[in-house]
Amino acid sequence: MSKIVLATDLGGTNLRMAAVGESGDVLFRTRSKTPETRSRDEILDLIAELASECKTEVGPKGEIIAFGIAAPAVIDHDAGVILIAPNLPELNGLAISEHLSRSLDLPVLLENDATAAAIGEQWKGACQGVASAICLTMGTGVGGGLIIDGKPLRGIDGTAGEVGHICVEPFGVPCACGSNGCLEQYASATAIVRMAEELIAAGRSSVLSELNEYSSHDIYKAGIGGDDVAKEVFTSAGFYLGVALGGLINVLNPEAIVIGGGVSDGWDLFIGSVEEQIAKRAFHQPGQRVKLMRAKLGDDAGILGVAKLAFAD
Amino acid sequence: MSKIVLATDLGGTNLRMAAVGESGDVLFRTRSKTPETRSRDEILDLIAELASECKTEVGPKGEIIAFGIAAPAVIDHDAGVILIAPNLPELNGLAISEHLSRSLDLPVLLENDATAAAIGEQWKGACQGVASAICLTMGTGVGGGLIIDGKPLRGIDGTAGEVGHICVEPFGVPCACGSNGCLEQYASATAIVRMAEELIAAGRSSVLSELNEYSSHDIYKAGIGGDDVAKEVFTSAGFYLGVALGGLINVLNPEAIVIGGGVSDGWDLFIGSVEEQIAKRAFHQPGQRVKLMRAKLGDDAGILGVAKLAFAD
Repeated sequence: MSKIVLATDLGGTNLRMAAVGESGDVLFRTRSKTPETRSRDEILDLIAELASECKTEVGPKGEIIAFGIAAPAVIDHDAGVILIAPNLPELNGLAISEHLSRSLDLPVLLENDATAAAIGEQWKGACQGVASAICLTMGTGVGGGLIIDGKPLRGIDGTAGEVGHICVEPFGVPCACGSNGCLEQYASATAIVRMAEELIAAGRSSVLSELNEYSSHDIYKAGIGGDDVAKEVFTSAGFYLGVALGGLINVLNPEAIVIGGGVSDGWDLFIGSVEEQIAKRAFHQPGQRVKLMRAKLGDDAGILGVAKLAFAD
Repeated sequence: MSKIVLATDLGGTNLRMAAVGESGDVLFRTRSKTPETRSRDEILDLIAELASECKTEVGPKGEIIAFGIAAPAVIDHDAGVILIAPNLPELNGLAISEHLSRSLDLPVLLENDATAAAIGEQWKGACQGVASAICLTMGTGVGGGLIIDGKPLRGIDGTAGEVGHICVEPFGVPCACGSNGCLEQYASATAIVRMAEELIAAGRSSVLSELNEYSSHDIYKAGIGGDDVAKEVFTSAGFYLGVALGGLINVLNPEAIVIGGGVSDGWDLFIGSVEEQIAKRAFHQPGQRVKLMRAKLGDDAGILGVAKLAFAD
């Protein structure tokens, strides 16, 4: 009988779940909005409900052997405890693996969502078979996960991988983390919008100024259409991304860098600038070696990554 | 019969060698100037000569089981080949392990010197028993070695650990590596001297201006004596070191950071500034967790590190 893992990506907005086969095939998927109350009990109940739906659907197809959770949190991987979940604070301190293994009667594996996404991309996505990779997600913030010697690098407290909080301008834009000039302040969707607003406020003309409000995706579309402000903003994001990655390449000498998240839609507008800075700032050999890749799995990355870990456990 | 490893630190200036016992005790040590010609044959002959001296001295005390080399080079660890040795270019491409294992009739292990120093500090120095550490050497340049999960992180090409070439000022001082604003340009002995010269040239008064020439050690002594320029220079070095380390802590979440090299003599003048920047820039948990330590082994770090690796091989 084939083996199946149920895997969930527990996001602040959506709770996605899938039944995944041993070769990484998604046999069934379901989702629901994360409860607006964000209460611990409601979230646990919803997970149980979706898991039950998955079991009903795929139960006849194989044996469900484990449950995996990718959470947007600092976690204690070995203990299966959510330590700090900034967007789901009711889960802070929750021994979620213990709770769910009791209610689902399955072994439960917990992983940080960015780390899980990195494992997913290595298993079935952009960097298959690669032993060392830096994976970045350019979304509302800039997240990251590292793979070293084929394994996720979690760090001693489970907080490793925060590539968005490398300093790229020591006296730069204040960051919510308390620092100044973090990469996140120059290469996230939020930063893309802020930088466009700054240029327009300084008197630069742009098609964007005809819009009441614009997203990083609107700026991307304007850039593709030739808008100078939009192009400059993405070039600037690429510059700072290259500054941070140049240093990481010198320190880690990885095989691949995988870039995903909504902002990566603007790949053609920023990647030239990233490559230019890496060529300038990374040592020749590791700079030439490293492959820059677009993430392939989108929202499935975390689910597949945690499924892979649950199969291996 | 007790086991002994011969280990050498092949520097651009000095070639040090020691016979090391299994518990890390140095049974005998010898050294010589690195041949000024820096010719391949002369270096290999000198190594053989010093090895023979070690064998004569310690042969009666135990069985010599292996030979270890710490080299200031990008290396292929598994093949035992020196790829690029910027300060000993005649060694580029040399299969040094093969050569020496033939002439010495011993298994030979090759390691990068900064990585070896990190292993040495973990075995017998500042960070004993620690599973993850960033080791920096603040000398003429800023070098580094990483330990992750108890093992040296070499990277896919053997070039990992170059913490001196993290960018801390994207439009900053040009670096010999081709980038701008590398940490090395703000926290090396060379940088300490340049920054003092800049302040004095700008009209600041300092006891240093009475000297024709001064080293980073002279600046350290002036700082201890209360000289404002000297104190400011070390504070500035500490600032940029903290900027770089804050990012590394967020990415790697290590247990320890070990700082050595000549500039680390000025510890009391710069460490407050490092701690301040880490408190500001690293996430709370990993920033609180990480221990900042002074390297303990000095010139022995590389020899002990490569000895440890040779014993384990």
